[in-house]
Amino acid sequence: MKKLLTLTLTLLCIGFLSAQDKTYTMKDAVLGSHTNLKPDNLKQLSWIPGKHAFTKLKDKALVKVSVPGMKEENLFSLADINAQLSDVDDFKKMPSIKWFDAAHIYFKHGDVFYRGDASDGNWNFHKWVELPKGETNYYVDKEKKQLAYSKGNNLYLADADGKSLAVTDNKDDDIVSGQIVSRQEFGIDRGVFFSPKGNYLAFYRKDESQVDDYPVIDWDTVPAKNKPVKYPMAGKKSQEIWLGIYSPKTGKTVYMKTGRHTDHYLTNVTWGPKENYIYIAILERSQKQLTLNKYDVETGEKTATLFEEKDDKYVHPAEPLYFIPGHDDQFIWWSERDGFMHLYRYNTDGKLLNKVTSGDWVVNSIDGWLPQQKEIIISSSKRSPMDKTLYAVNWENGKIRPLNDTPGMHTAKVSSDGNYWIDSYSNYNIPRKIIAAKTHGKWEKELLTADNPLKEYKKPEIKELTITAADGKTPLYARMILPPDFDKNKKYPVIVYLYNGPGIQLLHHSFPESGNLWYDYMAQHGYIIFTMDGRGSSNRGLDFEQVTYRHLGTHEMEDQLKGVGYLKSLPYVDADRLGVHGWSFGGFMTTSLMLRHPGVFKVAVAGGPVIDWRMYEIMYTERYMDRPQDNPEGYAESGLLDKVENLKGKLLIIHGAQDSTVVWQHSMRFLHACIQHNVQLDYFVYPAHPHNVRGKDRVHLMQKITDYFDEFLK
Amino acid sequence: MKKLLTLTLTLLCIGFLSAQDKTYTMKDAVLGSHTNLKPDNLKQLSWIPGKHAFTKLKDKALVKVSVPGMKEENLFSLADINAQLSDVDDFKKMPSIKWFDAAHIYFKHGDVFYRGDASDGNWNFHKWVELPKGETNYYVDKEKKQLAYSKGNNLYLADADGKSLAVTDNKDDDIVSGQIVSRQEFGIDRGVFFSPKGNYLAFYRKDESQVDDYPVIDWDTVPAKNKPVKYPMAGKKSQEIWLGIYSPKTGKTVYMKTGRHTDHYLTNVTWGPKENYIYIAILERSQKQLTLNKYDVETGEKTATLFEEKDDKYVHPAEPLYFIPGHDDQFIWWSERDGFMHLYRYNTDGKLLNKVTSGDWVVNSIDGWLPQQKEIIISSSKRSPMDKTLYAVNWENGKIRPLNDTPGMHTAKVSSDGNYWIDSYSNYNIPRKIIAAKTHGKWEKELLTADNPLKEYKKPEIKELTITAADGKTPLYARMILPPDFDKNKKYPVIVYLYNGPGIQLLHHSFPESGNLWYDYMAQHGYIIFTMDGRGSSNRGLDFEQVTYRHLGTHEMEDQLKGVGYLKSLPYVDADRLGVHGWSFGGFMTTSLMLRHPGVFKVAVAGGPVIDWRMYEIMYTERYMDRPQDNPEGYAESGLLDKVENLKGKLLIIHGAQDSTVVWQHSMRFLHACIQHNVQLDYFVYPAHPHNVRGKDRVHLMQKITDYFDEFLK
Repeated sequence: MKKLLTLTLTLLCIGFLSAQDKTYTMKDAVLGSHTNLKPDNLKQLSWIPGKHAFTKLKDKALVKVSVPGMKEENLFSLADINAQLSDVDDFKKMPSIKWFDAAHIYFKHGDVFYRGDASDGNWNFHKWVELPKGETNYYVDKEKKQLAYSKGNNLYLADADGKSLAVTDNKDDDIVSGQIVSRQEFGIDRGVFFSPKGNYLAFYRKDESQVDDYPVIDWDTVPAKNKPVKYPMAGKKSQEIWLGIYSPKTGKTVYMKTGRHTDHYLTNVTWGPKENYIYIAILERSQKQLTLNKYDVETGEKTATLFEEKDDKYVHPAEPLYFIPGHDDQFIWWSERDGFMHLYRYNTDGKLLNKVTSGDWVVNSIDGWLPQQKEIIISSSKRSPMDKTLYAVNWENGKIRPLNDTPGMHTAKVSSDGNYWIDSYSNYNIPRKIIAAKTHGKWEKELLTADNPLKEYKKPEIKELTITAADGKTPLYARMILPPDFDKNKKYPVIVYLYNGPGIQLLHHSFPESGNLWYDYMAQHGYIIFTMDGRGSSNRGLDFEQVTYRHLGTHEMEDQLKGVGYLKSLPYVDADRLGVHGWSFGGFMTTSLMLRHPGVFKVAVAGGPVIDWRMYEIMYTERYMDRPQDNPEGYAESGLLDKVENLKGKLLIIHGAQDSTVVWQHSMRFLHACIQHNVQLDYFVYPAHPHNVRGKDRVHLMQKITDYFDEFLK
Repeated sequence: MKKLLTLTLTLLCIGFLSAQDKTYTMKDAVLGSHTNLKPDNLKQLSWIPGKHAFTKLKDKALVKVSVPGMKEENLFSLADINAQLSDVDDFKKMPSIKWFDAAHIYFKHGDVFYRGDASDGNWNFHKWVELPKGETNYYVDKEKKQLAYSKGNNLYLADADGKSLAVTDNKDDDIVSGQIVSRQEFGIDRGVFFSPKGNYLAFYRKDESQVDDYPVIDWDTVPAKNKPVKYPMAGKKSQEIWLGIYSPKTGKTVYMKTGRHTDHYLTNVTWGPKENYIYIAILERSQKQLTLNKYDVETGEKTATLFEEKDDKYVHPAEPLYFIPGHDDQFIWWSERDGFMHLYRYNTDGKLLNKVTSGDWVVNSIDGWLPQQKEIIISSSKRSPMDKTLYAVNWENGKIRPLNDTPGMHTAKVSSDGNYWIDSYSNYNIPRKIIAAKTHGKWEKELLTADNPLKEYKKPEIKELTITAADGKTPLYARMILPPDFDKNKKYPVIVYLYNGPGIQLLHHSFPESGNLWYDYMAQHGYIIFTMDGRGSSNRGLDFEQVTYRHLGTHEMEDQLKGVGYLKSLPYVDADRLGVHGWSFGGFMTTSLMLRHPGVFKVAVAGGPVIDWRMYEIMYTERYMDRPQDNPEGYAESGLLDKVENLKGKLLIIHGAQDSTVVWQHSMRFLHACIQHNVQLDYFVYPAHPHNVRGKDRVHLMQKITDYFDEFLK
């Protein structure tokens, strides 16, 4: 009986496998998730402002779908746009439509912004503003239909009719207005902040004259040309930052009186709802103290300090104030003060009204509001650090209810009034599912369930693991990807893919289960892939992250070596054939493991690695490491230039020559140190690529990495 | 009987081998020829001006040796120098002594020049001139004991007492006086020309304001710093050149009226013996025509054109005029006009008096004069292109006699009056031999016969070969180095090492026989090394070189493939394991072979390769290729950027990041082209090295290259 069952199962398996016998090409493995192997999706899925209706793209037309009736109505087609704009441009596909309001849209094509108006019921399209060639820094104000944009280092403002004027007149190239400052740290993702009613334009101004130039060579021009960037290295002089407020009505700019402009950051910039105040957090350069201030928009004077936040290690602001709809004097403040990123309700006098969320999990985003229910829609790691699920939480009593219980990675789009939402999610078993639903009520409608694009491919066996960190107590999440035809009696080489730096988590409950089709590719070619988020990585709370403070790399490696210990305990792992690969912080980890724990890994590939934190940017580095002059032993411990002689095994370093994040000098100095000590290693450079090699050239990169493991590890 | 003989020979061989059983370390192979495995030599071997006596270093003292009596006399010791100069410097070893005249010397230590005077019979040393820190551009006038040197882009002159004044006052960094111009082409190896009696100082002035900047990054400074160089690429704007004559007496500079300053070169600069005229050849930018002019030193006016030289392809001046001692109106002119580099006697009216040398061989250098016998001492390839032997040739009747018949590479030092000479030479069997002799007479004295420093090492079997070029007639010299324990029944991998560019010859009749201990090292590790000087290389005459005109690479490869054909005909060569390696032009050849004749070589290593002649310098490139705008098909044929998809086999490219000869952009653009076409190759860069990797880091380089062949070819 048992024998028969086995036979039947075997036959079933054979039948099953024969449907899953395809293997990935390298192109599939690298680009497939965004191209031929991408799960189906709905395009241009967006709520129409003020309406119980959303849009989607269907047959080259933008379709309006009303909820809950699901009535569909064609708004306009690509042909309509082309018919009206044929004299100015040729649209090959529907541009990405953005809504001012229910009757007004805008879209960008090339360097030109267009508007579409349906005030009279018919959609009329016209050219709005033409940006300088290739300019990517721009911001739209929906209230007054204005467009702020950069022209070189100056800021311009176009009105609803497309009439432009200069907001700033910086003659000195080192002064830049209206662009992102502080190198995108502290959640700074914009250089312009329109006021709620569009009457003012707040903008950052930075003076980089004290910041060192770093050379970046354009190799494609003949002769090659230096196009230096301003790069502030840890411990050195930094940007000086201002916040200006421009009034289109008066044409005047008032700079907020934030005190000295050096050695602090202006973060959390948020307009007060009535446009009379603006809130700015002053974060000391040490990043150990933050002061939330309120400034008078007309005079620039500081009118109040609401509160301070301090931490022995660092505070890390990343979100603005979220004013509560209908409550102009109340806002949500994000803080890790209690160990996990949670929401706190304050009033504008700086009084803490209540802690809205709490627990051993973190809030990831605020996605919408239900004013009637006094609920905030959030995404969070409440279910597990590997899930991002959606909740509505009452801002007064903290009562929390799930909006969709399904495990996985969810993204919410909430209608203007908060009554409806669209949830797009995936998990190990669901490539993509999109539903529309009521936020408070039973109605729900499935919009899409994507087919599994990988169903014909050999699927690796995947094990989700929990491994105890080097502290002997903290559980760490890990994943092991086994070859599809795994045989426990064989010995397999293993590649540890890692990052383990702050702000990043590699393992998510999403599709595909492996997390990356290149892992599947490698598994199909006889490798085991192992990935683990050790202490220092994101979504696990402040203690988990801050264990690395002043010692980047050290504890992270101890944790990764726990993972290695687990691997070595497995009979089917060949402990003599362990490889490691990572990029950026992961490149730092990879190189550190080869030099500070030599002999563990036989083969390593490090991409864009930090080699010496003294050469990394101020904002990030000083948060985790303090300044070099204040933590010389920490910089010495983590610095790799004087440890090259420890290298055992094969190491390939890869860098992008255009890298202005981890500058090329890291690996160039590392090479030089290796050469000086007669240490052999391998090297490759991508002359036209920045910090990452993306696009079609990524196939070349991953082939190079694969070839290296095939040559020396397999 | 025969069996016994074989046995005896075998025993003898075993005995012989046991004395030669050492193998080279990589350090031996790379640095040994200049360090631990260097044949003995005599240091500071130099004729004392006006004397029948030379110096040598012995027991840390400079010893005077009189000829023919060979009486030795201590001149001064290192201790003497230190005793007198203890307050200014500490000399660890005897500095290199240069003679003004029989009683006056000078030497340089660090940035300081010192003088030594023995007018009163005792040597007195004192500080003379201190150069700007690290300055390497300086010239000494022995007549008036003056020193010209650079300070930035300006020229300075110090008198016999060390008093300095500025000769030029260039404010613009793009104007440089007193330095080498035209990138050292056309035999230009100096920027200053003192007049015969020291009354004037002629100097080059170049204006590089029209020449493109090329970025060179100093990776050792933090942050990295761009230190651009002026790099004139083929077809683009070039340096503008002047020749100025400065009179220390008047303090005035007169610029010679050489016509326009653009698009021609000032070559062959030579003072007339009486200091009233200076001779300059005007070489058109096309390099197809040269005009030898005579200029009045006081007015700068051109007073005569002596003659012109033309060639359909190019003329290539490389030597000044050599005025014949005692004949102020006669000089020797070097020319390839009859197909080989020979000497021609002219008078200063431009009349050809006679052709001094002739034959299917070339003159390499003029080393001295025997005025009484009307003889010039020359080195030449008369014996064979692989030998450089010494002759005395009568400048009136061309009668030529050898000074030393021994085959090999000879270097002559001739006494002031021409009566004595020192010959230092080596050949396959003689590591180094130095003799002193009479130039006209029987006396000869052996000064040194160096022991064989390699006698304990396994010597590869070396075959000297002659292979017919692709034209079906020209004999090409080649060398094959077989493993020491060569077994003709085995199959060996072969590495072809090549250069094959103009002006260079790889094979010489010198020590060690292989030409390079790395070849011996590779042979000891089981490789056959093959080297051949194909058409286009030096010492074989004009036709041999000019076959490559407008098509660099094409015929050179055809010839190298003849060598490959020979290799493939050998039963012990594994035709599936052929490798190729070369640097600079040899890197161009290597990469070209991989892309234009794919499939021949399995593994290639190209160092500092030219990838596209449009990115190489004007002076060299336009000689052989004309301008890109005049020879687009030749540049297209030789350019490698659009041929990357042809690559078969493994290719490692190596470049020095400081390379200002073949700029780094060559290989960076090549990488980019490979990446864009998804072509895999390997790459390595030496961040601190220029066009070649020299010094101790060369061990790292050669290990890298060796590892690559070991990994993929062995």
